[in-house]
Amino acid sequence: MSHLDETMPVSSPVIADHSPLALAQALIRCPSVTPEEGGALQWLGGVLEEAGFTVARPRFSEPGTPDIDNLYARIGTGSPYLLFAGHTDVVPPGTLEAWRHGPFDGAVSDGLLYGRGAVDMKGGIACMLSAALAFVAERGGAFNGSIGFLITGDEEGPAINGTVKLLEWAKARGERFDHCLLGEPTNPARLGEMIKIGRRGSLNGKLVVHGRQGHVAYPHKAENPIPGLLRLASALLAEPLDGGTAHFDASNLEFTTIDVGNPATNVIPADARATFNIRFNEGWTAETLGAEIRRRLEAAAGNAVRFTLDLQPSNSPAFLTKPDSFTDLVVEAIETETGLRPILSTTGGTSDARFIKDACPVIEFGLVGETMHQTNECVAVADLDRLTAIYGRVLLAYFAVASEKGEV
Amino acid sequence: MSHLDETMPVSSPVIADHSPLALAQALIRCPSVTPEEGGALQWLGGVLEEAGFTVARPRFSEPGTPDIDNLYARIGTGSPYLLFAGHTDVVPPGTLEAWRHGPFDGAVSDGLLYGRGAVDMKGGIACMLSAALAFVAERGGAFNGSIGFLITGDEEGPAINGTVKLLEWAKARGERFDHCLLGEPTNPARLGEMIKIGRRGSLNGKLVVHGRQGHVAYPHKAENPIPGLLRLASALLAEPLDGGTAHFDASNLEFTTIDVGNPATNVIPADARATFNIRFNEGWTAETLGAEIRRRLEAAAGNAVRFTLDLQPSNSPAFLTKPDSFTDLVVEAIETETGLRPILSTTGGTSDARFIKDACPVIEFGLVGETMHQTNECVAVADLDRLTAIYGRVLLAYFAVASEKGEV
Repeated sequence: MSHLDETMPVSSPVIADHSPLALAQALIRCPSVTPEEGGALQWLGGVLEEAGFTVARPRFSEPGTPDIDNLYARIGTGSPYLLFAGHTDVVPPGTLEAWRHGPFDGAVSDGLLYGRGAVDMKGGIACMLSAALAFVAERGGAFNGSIGFLITGDEEGPAINGTVKLLEWAKARGERFDHCLLGEPTNPARLGEMIKIGRRGSLNGKLVVHGRQGHVAYPHKAENPIPGLLRLASALLAEPLDGGTAHFDASNLEFTTIDVGNPATNVIPADARATFNIRFNEGWTAETLGAEIRRRLEAAAGNAVRFTLDLQPSNSPAFLTKPDSFTDLVVEAIETETGLRPILSTTGGTSDARFIKDACPVIEFGLVGETMHQTNECVAVADLDRLTAIYGRVLLAYFAVASEKGEV
Repeated sequence: MSHLDETMPVSSPVIADHSPLALAQALIRCPSVTPEEGGALQWLGGVLEEAGFTVARPRFSEPGTPDIDNLYARIGTGSPYLLFAGHTDVVPPGTLEAWRHGPFDGAVSDGLLYGRGAVDMKGGIACMLSAALAFVAERGGAFNGSIGFLITGDEEGPAINGTVKLLEWAKARGERFDHCLLGEPTNPARLGEMIKIGRRGSLNGKLVVHGRQGHVAYPHKAENPIPGLLRLASALLAEPLDGGTAHFDASNLEFTTIDVGNPATNVIPADARATFNIRFNEGWTAETLGAEIRRRLEAAAGNAVRFTLDLQPSNSPAFLTKPDSFTDLVVEAIETETGLRPILSTTGGTSDARFIKDACPVIEFGLVGETMHQTNECVAVADLDRLTAIYGRVLLAYFAVASEKGEV
């Protein structure tokens, strides 16, 4: 595909062992802490190219942010097109001494593979890769449809030079996807428990209550902003924002900080500041929710409290991928391999699915997230094998259905 | 008085003009910003010595605080003993460019004397000094009783090496006072409006609400301390502490700061801290008030909120000097000179009267405090003259009564 050739050259290392454990170990051994590529995408590109994928490695930059390496790979030219998505960058390992095994060693001990990214999400990428390599190899590269990999190095960072630009880049080159499976760790405790079919939106607000500074002994000459802040903050928490929807929990507001910063015990401060974050469901947009917050604050303030509300622009809308035959297919693959019927959930933090959802339906299923971002992040080797088997069943079912019906 | 001789030598400058304006100008020209003596006590000691007072200049020190110069002077050996008290130290002038006249120049313009300390309280000391010098000079130093000056250089600072130690020092030397007149600026807007006969106590408290840190997207796995803090802080403000007493306003609680210090908008913080100050009346001691605060917090917290309350030890109890014949005498002097009958008040910030009250009955009357601690602090020259006349009437009445009855 000539439209992908304006990118970095890819060398082709050889890895004989296509087991998810071997692939995950190879990835963990690349120290790809955001924004460092660490050799992870270079290695991944080599493996995919060797298997017959066309690989592009676009690098994106933006003033004030680090340049970021990304990867896009595709095999096949036809429909349907199933895209695997994920990221090779990882959060920092923290205190090295606290790790049982080096965070970039890929050591296996008692059936567990240790390392930064073991579950979030080099392990998940290894399973996708292992399943795809096997699927392609078994068919000699010949099947009806396309398999792609959209992998960024900027998911744990500012996410500016990552998935957003990679999707734009692919779109500009005419790439169109039918479904996306994002391999983030979605299971709270056991593999098979949970698929994510959407996420709540996220909105940050800053509330400042204005008063007038003065001496605590002369409160009538001052105007303490703190009682006003207590009143407004309490008003925001007084009533639930909603009762949840069929696929979403109730929207939730958390105050993350209150800061006055007045060190003088005999001074009434001039201003009091609070910051809050709201995780909201599909019943709201950032705009309707902002209006409701403002309405509650104005009702509580009346003429007694002077305040300023600053709602931060949010790139995290609530979104839902409506369950369909693709979801059913993934659910069935999971149930067959694990015996668990996964919950279709919209809980938890944001992921790059919030960007991918504009390109095609996206659902998320990966490893068990329990140890993600922690010291001694690890994954059961058995889980790597089972997730690979699940992804393999998804590929079989997806392209089998396609060959029968011409579409999913 | 040989028991005062273990002190610094005092030189005797000559100041011919004993008008309060000339004396106030001389004091203002000494740049005695706490803890600097700035020549103010040195000059004051010289003037008093020249007038026949025995002058001591004890210097006190304490590890971790600056050494402080003080002054104690007395004329006469008999009873009754009227003590004038005050301080020559001043707060910093702030931005020099913002002053109409230099803060240490003592310039007079449009009938106003400008300078740091003009009202707080070099002007007040100048009036006491002028009245005492005249009273003593008119009698050739012979009258029944004693007049004293107890002047510190550490009232605007930590007040550790000032009045507290000076009173201990005097007590150890057998000095006993019958009444004290403290010359702090007590009048809000017009000379004659207000005498202070006591002060509310002051108590500081630090409240910490404990939670459990976590991610805003998983509030059920964390415990946000901020709603608990809102609840406890609101509970402290919900009901007045009391309705005031005959001589005191209602006790008042002000939150001075709330600080969480969490910069991460996606993190629920572990703890939330608030600091408050209470100005309380004679209905409370620091102990009974602390118990009431704790009771309110515990009632609001129930089993739902975990908190720590840290009540700071306070050296500011509420106190009242019960109005008596001395108060009447001061009220009459004020009314005669100003036509105003002063309110007997217990409002406002703390002063060294909270220490002096343990040595003898103390009331406060001085200049108009409107410009104190501000840029362009100033006093009407006419007010200096009238306050001097008031202090002069107090001296006359005090010792006239004494000479008639043998006591006040």
